[in-house]
Amino acid sequence: MTTPINKPLPPNSTIGIIGGGQLGRMLCIASAELGYRTIILEPDQNAPAAQVANDQIIAAYDDEIALESLANLADIITYEFENVPSQTVERLEAKLPVEPNSKALMIAQDRLLEKQMSEEIGARPAPFYPVNNLEDLEKGLSQTGYPAILKTRRLGYDGKGQVKIEKSDDADSALKAMNGQDAILEAFVNFECEISIIGARNQDGTFIAYDIVENVHTNHILSSSTVPADIHTKVAQEAKDIARRIAQHLNYVGVFAVEFFVEHAKTENFKIYVNEIAPRVHNSGHWTEAACIISQFEQHIRAIAGLPLMPPTRHSDCVMHNIIGTQIDKLEPYFTNPDAKIQLYGKRETRDGRKMGHVTILSDASAIS
Amino acid sequence: MTTPINKPLPPNSTIGIIGGGQLGRMLCIASAELGYRTIILEPDQNAPAAQVANDQIIAAYDDEIALESLANLADIITYEFENVPSQTVERLEAKLPVEPNSKALMIAQDRLLEKQMSEEIGARPAPFYPVNNLEDLEKGLSQTGYPAILKTRRLGYDGKGQVKIEKSDDADSALKAMNGQDAILEAFVNFECEISIIGARNQDGTFIAYDIVENVHTNHILSSSTVPADIHTKVAQEAKDIARRIAQHLNYVGVFAVEFFVEHAKTENFKIYVNEIAPRVHNSGHWTEAACIISQFEQHIRAIAGLPLMPPTRHSDCVMHNIIGTQIDKLEPYFTNPDAKIQLYGKRETRDGRKMGHVTILSDASAIS
Repeated sequence: MTTPINKPLPPNSTIGIIGGGQLGRMLCIASAELGYRTIILEPDQNAPAAQVANDQIIAAYDDEIALESLANLADIITYEFENVPSQTVERLEAKLPVEPNSKALMIAQDRLLEKQMSEEIGARPAPFYPVNNLEDLEKGLSQTGYPAILKTRRLGYDGKGQVKIEKSDDADSALKAMNGQDAILEAFVNFECEISIIGARNQDGTFIAYDIVENVHTNHILSSSTVPADIHTKVAQEAKDIARRIAQHLNYVGVFAVEFFVEHAKTENFKIYVNEIAPRVHNSGHWTEAACIISQFEQHIRAIAGLPLMPPTRHSDCVMHNIIGTQIDKLEPYFTNPDAKIQLYGKRETRDGRKMGHVTILSDASAIS
Repeated sequence: MTTPINKPLPPNSTIGIIGGGQLGRMLCIASAELGYRTIILEPDQNAPAAQVANDQIIAAYDDEIALESLANLADIITYEFENVPSQTVERLEAKLPVEPNSKALMIAQDRLLEKQMSEEIGARPAPFYPVNNLEDLEKGLSQTGYPAILKTRRLGYDGKGQVKIEKSDDADSALKAMNGQDAILEAFVNFECEISIIGARNQDGTFIAYDIVENVHTNHILSSSTVPADIHTKVAQEAKDIARRIAQHLNYVGVFAVEFFVEHAKTENFKIYVNEIAPRVHNSGHWTEAACIISQFEQHIRAIAGLPLMPPTRHSDCVMHNIIGTQIDKLEPYFTNPDAKIQLYGKRETRDGRKMGHVTILSDASAIS
């Protein structure tokens, strides 16, 4: 059980972060700015977060001795990605505060539980059917029609662990691609736009949400996020309301993202589907560091440290572009753009599809003064 | 001699920083955001910058073996305070690019050379007289009248190394307080306001300057900086012009600050005195991280790394307050102010007069969205 933090974490306390990628890196920087120390649990000595953390335990995320050390060295724990073994979080929760809590993590790790929760709080996921065998799959397909998408229940991200089924002949091979893992069949939503919301909730139940973001994915990887999204105000209200209900339902503490598909997004006749919940800071919230006083990273640290949450004040419209793979070699237009705020992740090796950094272009900021 | 950087420093290059205080800390963070690694030379293992740097050489600033290692491990060198021994910088300059250059450092380290340079470029310092003995001092005082200020030529900051002389009887004891160091007598300027400008220049001679800041000092330590300063536009033009000429004169690369005293600051009949030049990022520029797209820290890293400088676009008016000594224990009003951006330095020990952090309050930012 999580021990609640009853007063703000004092300066110079240590925040333990599980995971050492770019999200951890930006959480470490936000922690430092608030006067906190950081220790990360991360096997790669040269990981993005390792470069800016105070300390690092170089070990696997489920290494028992490492977890013991982490619990001893940190005052509170958080994590930067949802594939942390839930046993890891439970083990730590027995010893010190861990936020977000293990229930939130467990639900976000499992597409079936995630969708069931969406229904429970009165939101609409894409129609879905649990699939453990070919019979389940065929039954599901008779409901969804074609195309439909078969996904593993767990451990999928950036399009990994999912197969599109175009016709009944594809069912068998799609199931084989799941490698025996539990799966879930989703109806294909012919959405007009994809939006997300970055919310935050703290221990006293205060909830804030940044303005809705419109996202474009390329090859299943987020390519750009635009704020504000070009949607009807009622879509924004509905998205924010769903995010609030999810946070409350999970007794959530920290920043999280909810992704939605939206049909007829510019009209009152919109239809909004919950696609995915991320129990962490999120790529589609990176723009907040350039266009807001308080970024999603600081907001997350504030939430878990028991500091007050801040209004998600935004001073500029903007578009965030991910810098993916060899795009890192073509930064000059960004470096020479006076409205561009660049953030690189310190990854030495460039790989196809690897997120190397991002840049947020503020609209007309250079015209302000 | 400095080897010029002919092309931008590539991502993942290493920037060596001499000094590990809060300025180094914020330079390390800015470096990370631009995809650079950092190594600091700093004797204190727990110093503010040590907590966020990639690597640290724990040694004195003039340790020869340490300097050799630093030169081998870094691609370029900069420094975060002007009391770096100038031999250290000269030694490093022989091996790799060091910015700002040793000439700028040498002049900024010596109040006499600094004031002579101000005159050389056509600006006005407070009337000054070099003082090596009582005779010099008495001669100077006959020119300045009372009060006047006797300062050591070197190694003064935050009011250290200076004595106010109220009457002729004080001359002898004031001279003794210099402890045999070369000194300089300055006439007392009865200024109406104290302003500063944060400028930056890069290798191709491009110069930018942020908006003028109005500063308030308490007990010789900067207490607050307000932007914009309440001054006549011609004061701002003159200050900017002086900063540009100084940078050009020194063939300066990087960010620097010039502090001025101003009489009749709100009128065309103003009189502007150059007080001090700091060859580094400066406390009176900390507001740029909250109110501008590109902070003074990023601008400095851009300048020394051969990246383009950016316009000093400011999206908000603001006031920066230093958090000094036990003020660190009274942060709640800042944590609950939606217009406040806090930056703490990770110093474990609170001491009287010690800069523990700062906070920038943006004007009405929370009313924007």
